[in-house]
Amino acid sequence: MSSFQPDEQSTASSFARPLGPSSRSQVPDFQVMIILGRVAELRAAGADVVSLCAGEPGGGAPAAVNARAAEVHASGRALNYTPTLGIAPLRQAIAAHYARWYGLDVDPARVAVTTGSSGAFMLGFLAAFNPGDRVAMARPGYAAYRNILAALGCQVVELDAGPAVRFQPTPALLEEAEAVHGPLAGLILASPNNPTGTMATRQEMAALAQWCSGRGVRLVSDEIYHGVTYGSPTTAGDGAAGGAGAGVERGVCAGEYSDEALVMSSFSKYWGMPGWRIGWMLMPEDLAPAIGGLSGSVSLCPPAAAQYAAVEAFTEQSYTECDVQVAGFARARALVLAHQDRLGWTDAAPADGAFYFWAKPGEAMLARYGTSTAYCEALLEEAHVALTPGTDFDTAHGEEYVRLSFAAGERDVAEAIERIVAFQQDASSGAV
Amino acid sequence: MSSFQPDEQSTASSFARPLGPSSRSQVPDFQVMIILGRVAELRAAGADVVSLCAGEPGGGAPAAVNARAAEVHASGRALNYTPTLGIAPLRQAIAAHYARWYGLDVDPARVAVTTGSSGAFMLGFLAAFNPGDRVAMARPGYAAYRNILAALGCQVVELDAGPAVRFQPTPALLEEAEAVHGPLAGLILASPNNPTGTMATRQEMAALAQWCSGRGVRLVSDEIYHGVTYGSPTTAGDGAAGGAGAGVERGVCAGEYSDEALVMSSFSKYWGMPGWRIGWMLMPEDLAPAIGGLSGSVSLCPPAAAQYAAVEAFTEQSYTECDVQVAGFARARALVLAHQDRLGWTDAAPADGAFYFWAKPGEAMLARYGTSTAYCEALLEEAHVALTPGTDFDTAHGEEYVRLSFAAGERDVAEAIERIVAFQQDASSGAV
Repeated sequence: MSSFQPDEQSTASSFARPLGPSSRSQVPDFQVMIILGRVAELRAAGADVVSLCAGEPGGGAPAAVNARAAEVHASGRALNYTPTLGIAPLRQAIAAHYARWYGLDVDPARVAVTTGSSGAFMLGFLAAFNPGDRVAMARPGYAAYRNILAALGCQVVELDAGPAVRFQPTPALLEEAEAVHGPLAGLILASPNNPTGTMATRQEMAALAQWCSGRGVRLVSDEIYHGVTYGSPTTAGDGAAGGAGAGVERGVCAGEYSDEALVMSSFSKYWGMPGWRIGWMLMPEDLAPAIGGLSGSVSLCPPAAAQYAAVEAFTEQSYTECDVQVAGFARARALVLAHQDRLGWTDAAPADGAFYFWAKPGEAMLARYGTSTAYCEALLEEAHVALTPGTDFDTAHGEEYVRLSFAAGERDVAEAIERIVAFQQDASSGAV
Repeated sequence: MSSFQPDEQSTASSFARPLGPSSRSQVPDFQVMIILGRVAELRAAGADVVSLCAGEPGGGAPAAVNARAAEVHASGRALNYTPTLGIAPLRQAIAAHYARWYGLDVDPARVAVTTGSSGAFMLGFLAAFNPGDRVAMARPGYAAYRNILAALGCQVVELDAGPAVRFQPTPALLEEAEAVHGPLAGLILASPNNPTGTMATRQEMAALAQWCSGRGVRLVSDEIYHGVTYGSPTTAGDGAAGGAGAGVERGVCAGEYSDEALVMSSFSKYWGMPGWRIGWMLMPEDLAPAIGGLSGSVSLCPPAAAQYAAVEAFTEQSYTECDVQVAGFARARALVLAHQDRLGWTDAAPADGAFYFWAKPGEAMLARYGTSTAYCEALLEEAHVALTPGTDFDTAHGEEYVRLSFAAGERDVAEAIERIVAFQQDASSGAV
């Protein structure tokens, strides 16, 4: 055998790496997914479970959206790729929505339709941040930001945003973070926030936008819960002075204070379309070419039928139907707030928007169960009420908090409250 | 003013980076998107354009798939998030498909339903490769692999796979690449290939799988064009000896030769559903937990209605409808091959599968126009036939090649051939 056989010629090829997952793919499992699995098991075994763990509105899409989608599919037409950033009528309709809700004049060319806001995060983060960039977000916060950024090699800087700052970032927290970690490249702001429901006021949004702009920090504003809002004292005052079309405070859009912000949104919450996987972002001018270029490779295009149907989401009738659903969330929220004392939960976040109530389940319960994870497990197994422990949202204090989603509506929430109160009484008296 | 104002306190915060896109987001535009835009303009101006540039089957989804999707939407039911890796009935149906076509026993737990094969590439690449990893792919090849890998910080190693190796990777090319660049972490194999249509034979797949396995190199097998195949001499012989259920060579599945391969597929081509954005991958056991974990953050779940509908893609009737569409592609392909001499195109790839014809537009045309891009531009403007120049697929020799997609069918292809022949005659005689 000659010494020039391929196997010997290259020393490189004799080096066999072990296979296995990449180090960047090691993200923690979502507890909520495990709990949803257990809920399904319990229900299959005949248990009557009240599930307040998922952040899903139950009412579905506006009627005209469903009808258009049904029509598109019933026609049997071929659904081919659309333009990568979405069909023109939908981009125009989304731009017009910004005029309606925020009084903003948005060029449809700055609207990118995406595969849910998940698609917007991936494309937006890739376009805005390089590996090694430091990106700040509030803790507690939505874990997908942290997981996507980490998978893309960014350094996530968590801001310890507790009750004192209504769980939202502040310029002071950002200053502190830069002093410790070095200059930031980005800030993720979520208002209304998941899991706390807190919203940035007009003044707070203006201050954060200005802080970012002055330092070359990219503001990424997650506004997917806009419209799912309750006119709370925190925001109603300055909302009335703002540009919201019908005088209703839908949330403050970062685009009102910055042309440099990436604004993310979605049909999943206000329009009740989580499974459709359709969302959008407003692209700042400097990122639009990169996002357009990447989207052809990363996603090709958002789902076509969902795009044709979503054009119907912006009619008067559709807005009215969505507002009826929000009124239902508002009643469920009022129930939770009215029974807060009976629950004995503490440190509750304001729940200005979204459909989440974030609180500590009381000292007695934490003393008895040790962690919110154990408390939630016992509550699910014994009282058949599913909540989400805080660990999905807060890597530091998550074991002290729970998230209750009232998206399931008034009836389920009322039943859950009675069960929780009874469960806690039993647990306190040692009856369990 | 005190010297301890926030703006002065932190030296870090006084460092303002210029905003702008990340360096990793700088991917070249797809020429085909620009051409599609020009086709739309010409048509809007009244021109009768024959478009053979896009890789889209025109026939649409099987009837039962459309009917199920229409039913789901007409019911008005809320479409919530599904499990992140897809609904169980669809994962089971896809697993059963591997028994039918390849005689493979696939555990449904290894099937991940994804948002098109684009979604599979993003999740699979993130799970399999770290930044800096070298991943090989054939040149010419599908640019999205290169663009996604580059955006994720991987080093793309292009294998110069010309006509001599039927445009496919070989162990020898891989050895050569490792000798030059160092050890590889992965190999992307696409069979049938876009843009060349060539397929790996059973022996070639076995050899590549073995080569990868022996070196700890992750094989990623893109099989989205499986089923869109023509029983060509290259593959029919050994295909008959293989496990294909009905004796038809649908393509060789990497899963037949490797448990370590990531196998990507899609409903976009054989099932005619590109705009639905639904595909899948077979996950090797060692990557399944990472892919499951990532998908919750990266995509949440694939489109729900498309999942419910896609279960209907695996009925006898649906397979029959898809095979009728493939027979139509076969007739269009036969037309191109029959007129190859009249076209005067050279170095044509075999077009074993997919719906592409990859060739050089002849020396006279390259001499006259200089590049395939210029040739395609002239052909579109003067003869109203849209092809794709090779630059979208080959960074080195792309300006010598064109890709003709015969997915549009027999009639369009016949008309295009006559126009191209006339255009080339005029161009050669200097009449233009």
